[in-house]
Amino acid sequence: MDYAQLFSNIKRKKSFLCIGLDTDSHKIPKILKDDENPVFKFNKQIIDRTASFCVAYKPNIAFYEAAGAAGWINLQMTVNYIRGKYPDIFIIADAKRADIGNSSKMYAKAFFEEMDFDAITVNPYMGEDSVAPFLSYKNKWAIILALTSNPGASNFQLALDSISNMHLFELVIKDSISWGNKENMMFVVGATKAEMLADIRKIIPDNFILVPGIGAQGGSLSDVARFGMNQQCGLLINSSRNIIYADATDQFAVKAGEEAQKIQAEMEVLLRQFNLI
Amino acid sequence: MDYAQLFSNIKRKKSFLCIGLDTDSHKIPKILKDDENPVFKFNKQIIDRTASFCVAYKPNIAFYEAAGAAGWINLQMTVNYIRGKYPDIFIIADAKRADIGNSSKMYAKAFFEEMDFDAITVNPYMGEDSVAPFLSYKNKWAIILALTSNPGASNFQLALDSISNMHLFELVIKDSISWGNKENMMFVVGATKAEMLADIRKIIPDNFILVPGIGAQGGSLSDVARFGMNQQCGLLINSSRNIIYADATDQFAVKAGEEAQKIQAEMEVLLRQFNLI
Repeated sequence: MDYAQLFSNIKRKKSFLCIGLDTDSHKIPKILKDDENPVFKFNKQIIDRTASFCVAYKPNIAFYEAAGAAGWINLQMTVNYIRGKYPDIFIIADAKRADIGNSSKMYAKAFFEEMDFDAITVNPYMGEDSVAPFLSYKNKWAIILALTSNPGASNFQLALDSISNMHLFELVIKDSISWGNKENMMFVVGATKAEMLADIRKIIPDNFILVPGIGAQGGSLSDVARFGMNQQCGLLINSSRNIIYADATDQFAVKAGEEAQKIQAEMEVLLRQFNLI
Repeated sequence: MDYAQLFSNIKRKKSFLCIGLDTDSHKIPKILKDDENPVFKFNKQIIDRTASFCVAYKPNIAFYEAAGAAGWINLQMTVNYIRGKYPDIFIIADAKRADIGNSSKMYAKAFFEEMDFDAITVNPYMGEDSVAPFLSYKNKWAIILALTSNPGASNFQLALDSISNMHLFELVIKDSISWGNKENMMFVVGATKAEMLADIRKIIPDNFILVPGIGAQGGSLSDVARFGMNQQCGLLINSSRNIIYADATDQFAVKAGEEAQKIQAEMEVLLRQFNLI
C-alpha cells in the first residue's frame, strides 16, 4: 500500500485507528478455550467486528512467537485472513527487528515475502545497513522506533548528542530520513510523549507517525492529534488491550467493535476539525 | 548454564569459540538439497563435526524466520538436538529482540521456555523495562548489544552523550550493568572494534563479551584477546560463515570441523598465554 492509498482509506473510513493484535492465549475468553485454534478464532472474530472502524492491524509478533511454530502459523493465518477479506487494511508486523545487513534481509523476507505484511517496526540502534533491507521493497514500509511509549524510553532515547545537540531519538529521525522517503518510512512516537510531536513534526512534516500508548498506557488521543496531525493526517494511532480485551464473555467481539467505534467517532471529529474530511 | 560452568567448559575444551548457525537454505551443499529437511540435516552434521571445538552455538533467528513456521520448527529441532547430545554447549538465540515489558516477557517465554536457549541477544534502545524480563530466569542470560560489528554501528552507537561525556554504547553498558549482574548479562562488542575493548573492560571487568565479526567481517582474534580477555576468559568469539560454509561439497561438515579446529588451536595458544589453562 502506498502513501496516497493510506490517506485515501483514512478519509473514506474517517479513522486513523490501528488495532494491535497482542493476542495472549491466557486472556482469550473462556468460550473459545476449547476451540481447535482459539488464537486464530479470537483474532478472526475481533477483526470481523472492528475492520470497518480501523485502517490498520498490528499483530505484536512476541505474542505469536511465545507459542513457537504453532504461534507462527496463527500469525500467518491472521495475516492471510485480513489480506483476503479486508484488502484495504494496512498490516503492520510489530516485530522491532534489525540486525546486520544480511540478517535484516532475511527478516525482510520473513515479513514481506513469506508473509504479506505492509510494514514492520524496526529498531534503529544498529544503523543504516540494518534498516536498508526493509526499504528495498516497493510499497512496503519500515517503521523506525524513535521515541517509544515505555518507561525505559528515558534511558537512552533522551541522551543528548553533544555534536548535533539533539536527543538520540531526534538524531535517529534526522539521520534516518535520508535512508528512505515518506513513501517507505514511518516513525514510532509514543502517545505518552505527545507534546514532543510538535518538535518532531519540524523534522518530519510529511512522514506518517505510528503512535502507540493511548488507552492502557495512558496517552491522550486529542493531544496526539493536536501536536502530530498533518495535511495527510500523518498519524496511525494504535490501541490494543483496550479494544481486544474490552470484554471476556461471549460478547467479547461485539464489545471490541463498540470500543473501536468509539475511538473512530473521536477520530472523525478530529479529522473534521483539521478539515481533512 | 552459570558463569562458573561456562568458564569451566572453556578451560576443559581449550576454546572460547561460538559457532554461528546462520543457515541459509540457498547456501546448503547440493548433496543435501533433496533431503526432506536440508536445513536441519545441515545443522546436525555441522554440529557433530564442530561440537568438540566450540563452547557455544548461536543460531541466527532471522535465517529461520525467513522460512516461516517450517523455519521455526528447524530452529526448535536444532536446539533440541544440541541440548540432547551436547549438554555442555551454551546456546544463544541471536534474535536481537526487545519491546515494552509485557511484550519482552513473551519473547523471553519464546526463547527460554518454548525453546531451551541459554541466552538471547537483546537490543537496548527501549531501555530497562524492555530488557528486564530476560533477566528474570535463573541461569539464563541477556546479551545486550553495545558496539556492533557492522558499518551502521557508527550512526548512533558512537553518538557522544553530553551529560555523561560517553559514547552511546558506553552509556548503554554503564547504565545496564545495574539491571543485572555478571551471572545473567553479557554484552556484544564487534571484533572490528577490538581496540575499544580495553576501555570497555574498565566499565565491565567481569562480564562475558560476545564478539562477532572475526572472519568474514574482518576482525582479528588475537587483537580481541589482547584487549578483551579477563581472568575468567570473559570472551565468546563468534564465527559463522567462515566455518559453516567452508566447503560446498559432500565434505562440507568435515571442512567445517577443520576450520573450527584451526580457530580452537589459536584460542588454546591464547588461553595459555593468559595463564588460564
